[in-house]
Parts: sequence; C-alpha cells; structure tokens
Amino acid sequence: MPRVVPIRWVDGRIEILDQTLLPRRETYIRCRTVRQVADAIRSMRVRGAPLIGIAAAYAMALSKNPRRDAQILIRARPTAVNLSWAVMQMLPDPTLAEAKRIHREDRNMCDRIARHGARLFRRGAPALTICNTGALATGGVGTAYGVLRRARANVFALETRPAWQGARLTMWEAKKNRLPATLVADGAAGSILREGRVRVVITGADRIARNGDTANKIGTYSLAVLAREDRVPFYVAAPSSTFDLSLRTGRDIPIEERDPAELLTAAPHGVQAFNPAFDVTPARLITAFITDRGVLRPPFHPSLR
Amino acid sequence: MPRVVPIRWVDGRIEILDQTLLPRRETYIRCRTVRQVADAIRSMRVRGAPLIGIAAAYAMALSKNPRRDAQILIRARPTAVNLSWAVMQMLPDPTLAEAKRIHREDRNMCDRIARHGARLFRRGAPALTICNTGALATGGVGTAYGVLRRARANVFALETRPAWQGARLTMWEAKKNRLPATLVADGAAGSILREGRVRVVITGADRIARNGDTANKIGTYSLAVLAREDRVPFYVAAPSSTFDLSLRTGRDIPIEERDPAELLTAAPHGVQAFNPAFDVTPARLITAFITDRGVLRPPFHPSLR
Repeated sequence: MPRVVPIRWVDGRIEILDQTLLPRRETYIRCRTVRQVADAIRSMRVRGAPLIGIAAAYAMALSKNPRRDAQILIRARPTAVNLSWAVMQMLPDPTLAEAKRIHREDRNMCDRIARHGARLFRRGAPALTICNTGALATGGVGTAYGVLRRARANVFALETRPAWQGARLTMWEAKKNRLPATLVADGAAGSILREGRVRVVITGADRIARNGDTANKIGTYSLAVLAREDRVPFYVAAPSSTFDLSLRTGRDIPIEERDPAELLTAAPHGVQAFNPAFDVTPARLITAFITDRGVLRPPFHPSLR
Repeated sequence: MPRVVPIRWVDGRIEILDQTLLPRRETYIRCRTVRQVADAIRSMRVRGAPLIGIAAAYAMALSKNPRRDAQILIRARPTAVNLSWAVMQMLPDPTLAEAKRIHREDRNMCDRIARHGARLFRRGAPALTICNTGALATGGVGTAYGVLRRARANVFALETRPAWQGARLTMWEAKKNRLPATLVADGAAGSILREGRVRVVITGADRIARNGDTANKIGTYSLAVLAREDRVPFYVAAPSSTFDLSLRTGRDIPIEERDPAELLTAAPHGVQAFNPAFDVTPARLITAFITDRGVLRPPFHPSLR
C-alpha cells in the first residue's frame, strides 16, 4: 500500500506535501527557512494538530535564532497546542536528532491510540468523522482516522467546509488504504445519526483543557450534541501532546478566526462572512478520550491530572 | 429596490430565472413545454417549495394532456408537497388564469407570513437561517426570509451544501435588499448558537405532516437540535400549501436522494457519497409554525386539524 509522507527531511531541507493541492496533485514544497515553514503552516499547506508540531520541530532544527523563531512558529496558528508543545520541546536542544525524535514519538503515539481505540469498535462498524485525522495530520497512522483504519470501520466523512479536509484529504487517504468511505455534506450529520446509519462518532482534537473541554475543527461541537441526542458514543482521539493542562476549561482556548474569503467562493462579491476555524465541545458531551496512554472515561479531571 | 422575478409568463412561454447560475449571471431560460419545466425543476434551475408549485402551475397551463403532464410534473421532485398541491389545483381548470391565481395567492400568503412572523422578532435581532426562502423560493417576498426582511433582522446564513442556496441565493437577495447578512459554514451553526451570536433560528419547509414533523433542506434537523440545546427559539415559516394533512408523521414524507456527484467536486475521483436533499425535524423541536393563517404553537395536532 503506498505510504503517505506529508513531511520529510531531505539534505538539510524540509519537504512538505502541499495539502492545499490534494487530491488533484501530489507536490512537495521545499522549505529552507523557519519563515517558509511558518508560512506553510499558516496557509494550511501542512495542517493537522500533531503534524504542524512536527513541522515546527524540523523548522527549529533550521533555526539560527531559536528564541525568536520559536515565537514566529507558535504564532503561525493559535488553536492547536501541539505547535507550541513541539517548539518548547525543541528550545533546549534545537537539533535534527531532537526533531526526528519528536516525529518518531508522534508515530508511536498514533500506533498506541489506534490500538487502544480499535478495541472499542466492532470491526466494520459504520462511523462518522470530521476533518482529516490520518497520516496527513500526524507523524504516523493518525489519531481518529488511525482508529478507524485499524478497526476497518465503514467511514462516513463530513466534507468539512471551508477547507474540505474531509472531502479532499480523508477521502483520499481512505481510497489509498482501501477503507470503505462515504462522503456526506456537513449538514447531513444530524440526519445520518438520527437514521442510525452510523453507530459511533470519532474526531481528533486541537487542544484539550484540564476539565476535558476540547477544541477541534468547526462543526465538532454540533456533532457531539447530535450524537448525544441519538445516544451514539462520541469519542475524541488525541496524543498526550494535545492536552493542555495549563488551561482550566475550554473557555481559555484561543479560537482562530480565518480569512472570510475562504467562505466566499460561491457567494456574491462584497458580502460579509464569519469564519471561525474551531469550536469547543464541552467535556460532558464526550464519551471517552482515546489517547496513547489508554482510554479515559468521565470524570476526566482526576485521570487528566 | 430591484425586484427579484424568478418566474414570469411572457407571450405564451414560461421564463425561468436560472438559479444554478446565480449570483454570477442573471439568465432566463424559456420553457415552451411541460417537459422543459419538469427538467428545470429537477435540475434546480427553479427551486424552493412554493416556487416549484408555481412553475408547475404555469406548466399545466401549457399542457395538451393535463392528466399525463400532472404525473410528469409531480415526479420531478418528491419531497416538497407544494408541487403536487399546485398541480392538483390546476387539474380541473388548467388555464393561465388559474396559474396566475395560484401565483398571486402565494404572494399574498408570503405577505401574511411576513406580517405574522415579524411580530415575533425584535427589530434587528441576529437570526440564523438555512437554504434560501426568499423571493427566489416563492411567488412573493418569501417565507422565513420574508419574516427576516420585514423584521430587518441581522441575518446569519448557512452556506447550505451541496447546492449553496445560502451562499449563492440568500446572500444575493440580502445584498439586493440591503439587509445585513453574514455567511457562515454549515458546521459553524452549533458554535454560533452556543456563543449567543444569534437569538433565533428560522427556516422554511418542504412538507409538514399532520403532527407537525417537518421536512426541509438537509441540515435543518441539526439546527433544531442545536437551537434547543442552547434554548434558542426555532421557527418554521410556511404557507398553507406546505402542510400535508394526509400524512400522520414525518416518517411518511418521501426524502429525495440526489446525485452523489453534487458532493464530489472537491473529492478524489471514484469515491462514494450519500446525498439526501432533505431531513425531517420532529415536531417536538419546533417552537412555532409561522403561517399565512397565523402562528401555531404546540400542541400542533389540534390547530393543524
């Protein structure tokens, strides 16, 4: 099966698979400087909470001024905590070896998440997911998608407007992995749950506060409310690096607002749009977290400590 | 203010504003036969539950074989009951005068809906809506959109994938009417409600069963669940012609599945999609119906009778 390699170190340069061009073209861009990597993160050529951490780690290995460059990288996108987590890991020792260790560690965390998660799934179970949480979002098999892949789930993927990560990226990975997958409109989530077409919902995460409140792709909060309405389990899969124990609740998580232009492709010229990239799902709507250290069930606070 | 004329009778032909080309081009197609009108309904060049009824009424006035043509028109789209309602009205008297009467009657019903609805709204209130329910969907000012316009609401319009009726059509009408409007992704509905950015949700309807269960654009059921979660009123605005008292509950409403290709523009080639065009909102999630005959509050069953 062809491997998906979203980032690689080649001859002192970082090569990044340009995800904005997928699935039509598989093109790598070469980054020689920290600023080029920060731009690639900002423009979502490289995306996915764990993967932008890994990209930033490699960028730090290029840095001549790690303290300044740490700030540049952390500011590229505000919501996913993996970015600042990886940069802070790199600060004492900004070497290629350390970046590779962070990359390898994420791959291992993905494997453990997939293993823990797959035990919760009936093989072939129809499962709804949002955004992309696979090899294109991490250093390994993925978080939520890694679980789905290992469980040989029957994937229902939301399109995930405005950047189409479900339509463009999850459907591309599923096709490569020969995993059965069906694309559905974001607005169809409720109806699909209501009609019993899926038996479980699983998503990734961008930042998880101490009480379990979880920031993830815009639309995740809606999914969690709809899952509970129809008594369907709602799982969040994430590595340890996504937990931000410095934050008491989800209210403290910074939510990125992106350019309204991302929404205006089909609209008349000159109209207004509001484009929050993430939302916060309250802990009470989450059935369990699937992490590299095992499955956490409520109450989350004691186990997170 | 420029009037929106989505359908007109000119010299024995029906001229239909091709809504698939909006907002980029305002082009009318000319229909000389019933089959041409049925095709325009099927391909959504003309759409909106009340408006496809009006289009079918004019088509019946062209018919040489009303009994056969009634079937062709009714089969064009299955969910909105206004289509068969208008065709059945035309069957005993398939004349232009009768089609114009149906058109005029819808315009009057829109005015009454707007008047009844606006009383429920604080002027300028931020309100979330889905799809397009304005002049492009009816013979008058619209249903839900007519209420919003009359109340001078601050409109938040969902994009409404896959056909973008919110992004393309509602934003276009709002711009023409100088009504403040902000476009948001379908997935952002929950977060916008949760953060208190809107104080009310209002939608149109394609068919309402005797118990109040309501079929409408895919995504409406999700909106209703999310509105209740955050204790925001959820209104459905519809003319008498949208009520189908022959059906006991929403389970009896036929839900159209459209071509998966509508979802596959951004996706890899050869993948699968599921594309239901409507969903059913259970009556228990609806705060009130705003109709031409007044505002109906629960329990709906007695007042609907």
